[in-house]
Amino acid sequence: MTSVLITNIGELVTNDPVAEDLLGLRTDAALVLDDGVVAWVGSAGDAPAADEVVDAGGRAVLPGFVDSHSHLVFAGDRAEEFRARMAGESYAAGGIRTTVAVTRAASDDELAANVARLVEEMRRQGTTTVEIKSGYGLSVADEERSLRVASGFTDETTFLGAHVVPPEYADDPAGYVDLVTGPMLAAAAPYARWIDAFCETGAFDADQARAVLTAGAAAGLHGRLHANQLGPGPGVALAAELGLTAVDHCTYLTDDDVHALRDSGTVATLLPGVEFSTRQPYPDARRLLDAGVRVALASDCNPGSCYTSSIPLCIALAVREMGMTPAEAVHAATAGGAAALGRADVGLLVPGSRADVVLLEAASHVHLAYRPGVPLIRRVWASGVPPA
Amino acid sequence: MTSVLITNIGELVTNDPVAEDLLGLRTDAALVLDDGVVAWVGSAGDAPAADEVVDAGGRAVLPGFVDSHSHLVFAGDRAEEFRARMAGESYAAGGIRTTVAVTRAASDDELAANVARLVEEMRRQGTTTVEIKSGYGLSVADEERSLRVASGFTDETTFLGAHVVPPEYADDPAGYVDLVTGPMLAAAAPYARWIDAFCETGAFDADQARAVLTAGAAAGLHGRLHANQLGPGPGVALAAELGLTAVDHCTYLTDDDVHALRDSGTVATLLPGVEFSTRQPYPDARRLLDAGVRVALASDCNPGSCYTSSIPLCIALAVREMGMTPAEAVHAATAGGAAALGRADVGLLVPGSRADVVLLEAASHVHLAYRPGVPLIRRVWASGVPPA
Ligand SMILES: [Zn+2]
Ligand SMILES: [Zn+2]
Repeated sequence: MTSVLITNIGELVTNDPVAEDLLGLRTDAALVLDDGVVAWVGSAGDAPAADEVVDAGGRAVLPGFVDSHSHLVFAGDRAEEFRARMAGESYAAGGIRTTVAVTRAASDDELAANVARLVEEMRRQGTTTVEIKSGYGLSVADEERSLRVASGFTDETTFLGAHVVPPEYADDPAGYVDLVTGPMLAAAAPYARWIDAFCETGAFDADQARAVLTAGAAAGLHGRLHANQLGPGPGVALAAELGLTAVDHCTYLTDDDVHALRDSGTVATLLPGVEFSTRQPYPDARRLLDAGVRVALASDCNPGSCYTSSIPLCIALAVREMGMTPAEAVHAATAGGAAALGRADVGLLVPGSRADVVLLEAASHVHLAYRPGVPLIRRVWASGVPPA
Repeated sequence: MTSVLITNIGELVTNDPVAEDLLGLRTDAALVLDDGVVAWVGSAGDAPAADEVVDAGGRAVLPGFVDSHSHLVFAGDRAEEFRARMAGESYAAGGIRTTVAVTRAASDDELAANVARLVEEMRRQGTTTVEIKSGYGLSVADEERSLRVASGFTDETTFLGAHVVPPEYADDPAGYVDLVTGPMLAAAAPYARWIDAFCETGAFDADQARAVLTAGAAAGLHGRLHANQLGPGPGVALAAELGLTAVDHCTYLTDDDVHALRDSGTVATLLPGVEFSTRQPYPDARRLLDAGVRVALASDCNPGSCYTSSIPLCIALAVREMGMTPAEAVHAATAGGAAALGRADVGLLVPGSRADVVLLEAASHVHLAYRPGVPLIRRVWASGVPPA
């Protein structure tokens, strides 16, 4: 593998945890990528030689975004449901179940093509690590193949059989939880690193979510949770009690929830694209940060409640709507996402970290919020390799 | 010039005014571009031959966006001012005057390079017609050269000497209005199609704006106005009274303002990127549409209050925040922008209209709001020519 020297970097976001500022900013910097990792970080004037030299032209360089929450294994879309919702029309939407039906009917190749399309779309927008959940199969065979497909694209795969109770179990939700914690988990576990549940009124209650997470832990999977999206609920407290790595949404929190997150160290993953696309109120990132809770930003890319794959948009929304500074938002979308996946090798640019690098078409990280919607990703390296 | 057949279009937005639906949608459509205009529109099965054939693969095709409000002739940026504003820090910002100082200090070539960069960035996001204002020169020579530079990129140039009173006239605003309506107008007029003023508390009052617009009309320029952005004011009523083509911002309107716009036919141009970037409340597009006012969406791209060049973001914001349907927002960003510039040849795709065409990476126009932040512009033709 050829080594790459990126030099003349106007602003380098290292996220170095020993730096005094949040982003570990360096100016007039340079970076060497070699063998898939960051081999050297320093001042441009001291840069060693490398096989290839890239002149950043004074632009900003960041760690690739770490998107710790997405649902990419599906077929079809729900554009008509979105249109009707935005027009205020009543619409007999099947919601997640609509996508379950078309996902079950799709071939493995169709599902893989959809994931490939969206992973590539994310890459062009700066995302170099993505977590992908199952959850539109909801049968043993369809959850297993969803995770098998996902595992072709990322190591960060999450079994979400407990996304919603499928129609065939509408009269027997307890039977569905037994299926999820039994044969479905057994089939899914070889392809999954994480287990997740949608703990919300209308989906799974705290006892059901606890049963799913406990079974998953016994099968060697790490836990994460969808919780407190649509209203207050027990999910965030459960996540903190179980010491989960992350709990996602966190839109409706009590003071006790906030304190529990601070004490457990569980990362609160905020997904503002969802609130954007559903006209719901945004989570209060400021409150979490001020309380000392670790915060991540992720896309939640899915065909129903949020079909954006754009971490730059999430950063801009976090600044506009959630009280974050540009630096906090960029940190949450890089180092924050890494923490939400328990990863120490991504989300930062220090010697030894994975060579996941974004070159912006801008002089600073601030521009990601200052120039919303503008495609500012000039070049991306993932494990040191530029896209084909 | 080679003719181009775009065929297998899943959804074609024609904006044909004789169609029954707002967007004049056609399915299974095809389009022939020849000699810079749309030569033929019809069903894919009936398409004539052409020199080049582009298979749209079932994707959506739209008229290029018409961005009727931008300020691209400037130097520098104000990222630090933005950062401080978002962090809630007090910041001794010079606002527009900061940009005036660096713009005056820049060379003609530097100003032209900045416009070229932003026009190219807009093009990649689907904008094929852009209005460009002066207004960061504020001296006879600097306004003249700003418009000379702008006129190298568009026919839709606007003289905005009445943007703000420059520091050297701080004690003599009446003297500055005399300068604007006298020698500055005389120098600017050869390069300008429009004249504009910022009618707002702290900028120019209604009498001053009327003087500017009247002098401009006498010099052969058409009028447009910035008004009612920061609070209620007389600007919108003045625009309607004078029968201006468009009045822009329209965030704070009385019922009388709305009725006056309806009766005058003046287009209300809404600029939601500004409210996004300043955390201000959004204008109420629904109220205007329900009252029968014609509405346009534009970017207001400028380095201070809104540094986005993205019409797709403006469409998504209009749907999320301003009560527009996806169809209304797309119409406002195409046909609406054309109406705001008094143009009949752009913003629609019918035989004879300019061959400004956007091919989306999506099956329908709805995706521009359904997939916010995602770069969905697959290919663009301007006057029938793809980008170099
Ligand atoms: Zn989710
Ligand atoms: Zn403006």
